[in-house]
Amino acid sequence: MTKYLQEERPSGDDGRPDAEGESLLNRRGLLAGAAGLVGAMLMGSVTPSAEASTEGSPEDPTRVPGAAPTAYGQRSAFEKSARIPRSWWSSLTPLQDSHGILTPSALHFERHHNGVPTIQPTRHRLLIHGMVDQPWTFILDDLKRFPSVSRLAFIECSGNSGSEWRGPAGQTAQQTHGLTSTSEWTGVALKTVLQEVGVNPDASWMLAEGSDAAAMTRSLPLAPILEEAMLCYAQNGEPLRPEQGYPLRLLIPGWEGNTCIKWLRRLKLGRAPFMTREETSQYTDLMPDGTARQFTMVMDAKSVITSPSGGQHIQPGFVEIRGLAWSGRGRITLVEVSTDGGRSWQQATLQEPILPKCHTRFHFPWQWNGEDVILQSRCLDDTGYRQPDRATLVAVRGINSVYHYNAIQSWHIAADGKVSNVHA
Amino acid sequence: MTKYLQEERPSGDDGRPDAEGESLLNRRGLLAGAAGLVGAMLMGSVTPSAEASTEGSPEDPTRVPGAAPTAYGQRSAFEKSARIPRSWWSSLTPLQDSHGILTPSALHFERHHNGVPTIQPTRHRLLIHGMVDQPWTFILDDLKRFPSVSRLAFIECSGNSGSEWRGPAGQTAQQTHGLTSTSEWTGVALKTVLQEVGVNPDASWMLAEGSDAAAMTRSLPLAPILEEAMLCYAQNGEPLRPEQGYPLRLLIPGWEGNTCIKWLRRLKLGRAPFMTREETSQYTDLMPDGTARQFTMVMDAKSVITSPSGGQHIQPGFVEIRGLAWSGRGRITLVEVSTDGGRSWQQATLQEPILPKCHTRFHFPWQWNGEDVILQSRCLDDTGYRQPDRATLVAVRGINSVYHYNAIQSWHIAADGKVSNVHA
Repeated sequence: MTKYLQEERPSGDDGRPDAEGESLLNRRGLLAGAAGLVGAMLMGSVTPSAEASTEGSPEDPTRVPGAAPTAYGQRSAFEKSARIPRSWWSSLTPLQDSHGILTPSALHFERHHNGVPTIQPTRHRLLIHGMVDQPWTFILDDLKRFPSVSRLAFIECSGNSGSEWRGPAGQTAQQTHGLTSTSEWTGVALKTVLQEVGVNPDASWMLAEGSDAAAMTRSLPLAPILEEAMLCYAQNGEPLRPEQGYPLRLLIPGWEGNTCIKWLRRLKLGRAPFMTREETSQYTDLMPDGTARQFTMVMDAKSVITSPSGGQHIQPGFVEIRGLAWSGRGRITLVEVSTDGGRSWQQATLQEPILPKCHTRFHFPWQWNGEDVILQSRCLDDTGYRQPDRATLVAVRGINSVYHYNAIQSWHIAADGKVSNVHA
Repeated sequence: MTKYLQEERPSGDDGRPDAEGESLLNRRGLLAGAAGLVGAMLMGSVTPSAEASTEGSPEDPTRVPGAAPTAYGQRSAFEKSARIPRSWWSSLTPLQDSHGILTPSALHFERHHNGVPTIQPTRHRLLIHGMVDQPWTFILDDLKRFPSVSRLAFIECSGNSGSEWRGPAGQTAQQTHGLTSTSEWTGVALKTVLQEVGVNPDASWMLAEGSDAAAMTRSLPLAPILEEAMLCYAQNGEPLRPEQGYPLRLLIPGWEGNTCIKWLRRLKLGRAPFMTREETSQYTDLMPDGTARQFTMVMDAKSVITSPSGGQHIQPGFVEIRGLAWSGRGRITLVEVSTDGGRSWQQATLQEPILPKCHTRFHFPWQWNGEDVILQSRCLDDTGYRQPDRATLVAVRGINSVYHYNAIQSWHIAADGKVSNVHA
């Protein structure tokens, strides 16, 4: 194995990695960080660099006993990555800081219609009524006694990247694409609970209502959701976060986030959609001919390069292009990257596990030579659906929509390394 | 699909779920929670039950605008699940409260040898030296520029369930098995970084050292770890938590947790183990003949029922048995559950995804008839290794060890529903 390393490793005359091309990292960059530190660090006498504050951190952490265990840990005080508000009732996930496929619960995007309610879990109830054999009210402990299921799934607001319908408005990946997040969700299958109360064979739609101050309400056709929908009480191994519907939310993997009703208190079975406010005043898509698409539930395949992305700066040399791809229809099967504004495409590596209706991380190794370029990614899912370019999407949909924008995202890299959002 | 529900759903004469047997939930339990609530809850006039405090939560959350978005979210104030200290320098994950396969970073078990250091990330350095072509010191940003990899993996302290060598000491699943946790880890492959500095073909061991106040140090044979070892800077989608080695840790999937050096500051390549304190005074296994096993790195297959588990109480009727299984050798292929103290075994359902060297969640549906019973689980991994019963393990290892106890765990359920730890 060390032989394998020797064979694979390029080396210059002096046995050091070459400065350009063959070595992954730019030598000057490395030396800037490393100068004078070999040996010195062993002695614990590293001098803080000019920009490094000493607030709360000892100069040599090996000389100071550390902190004792804690009941519930917090992140390092040096980390500042944050959701940013998009409106009074939404905030965006910092995708440019993301790693892997999971979103930390603390940074999961938010979208609520009248704020995050404070709910005492022992007081919370779920009523199931309408066209059922027996209306029933469940307490949370009832729902936790049913057989449980877990899955990793993304939730994406249908308004995600809606800023891009009419122009390159978002400055960063957080601003353009930060209304999607992935968690491991645990709860009870909707079908298990419906089986318990007994559903009238003529029932084909279900109303779901939240106990937030908007009483957020959507109608859902039963047939397409029954195999996968879940009533979730846990997220990433612990109870749901308040912003994600604590103590109970609906999850319909792959469907627009607003259908995954949070703070869920009521399900009503019926024969037809209930035509709530959210199905008319919002969550429809205005088409070029003046009509509106309604009940556009599935989130189509989308991808975005999270690094390098808008607002970042890069240096010439090796740059790993990293991004996320996802599809509400199933698994991502292919992500391609272009470094020339879409003239040519190359296959990216997909990080395992590749799960259906879940963020998939992709990587693409690249050498940036300092020229002005445009980076793009596009994806394909296992139904054969391919993420469209902007012209194709606009030709069908026009530019009057708010929701369901999933065109290829372009990042422009200027000669000085600055990355910005463009429509190419 | 509604027809499917009707076919599957057992019903009594009155169309309501049967009280016993055919219905998943015990009817009395349900009615106790539901009495008088149908209708009332629609009006928002649910009366808090006696035990429900109203602290901070409105009686009807639909009547009060909720909270605005936040930069970095917190869990609900009603949730109290917590790590508990096992010693000055360790704390245990509350497995009895776990859902799915992920451990929330805030509840990941802790094991440190002189506390959790506070490290300024821009000041942190990783030195790689010894039998390498070119000693090199990396800053964190250097490591983040390399090609990145992510994987879900458990980390288990070799002392996990060590309380059970000599008697049924732990009261709860947290106390017996709470030194294992699963996260998604992101970083750079060790082999990528070693390739950069160039490893002497004669080097076969590597020293890894932390920058905590113990300068925690282990020797690692290169050959078995090089394909999978990672230098991690992220956990569950954000930077490592301080207790998990912020800003840099080693991860050797499947190996005992102490080899996954946290706060990693130094790697030294050599021809032989360095025989550090941790390789002699600790982390060896005393055998019955008085000799000690050394460098016992791999965590063998283990499983534990997390619910019902010690300290919990159950009610007669439907009970889903839930637990976790994992193996440092690979994937879990089978979990079996016994509800009669090991006389008979039945196959549990494994929750997808089933990932190598990662917690796997299992479920088993059970009807408890109120009799005194003993619950057990045992697992098999894809190398054919089967979790041993206690007698088999003790016959080989004796009872002088501290580490690497992986025998079948038994939970006794008394007629009053109380669950406790026994050796059966």
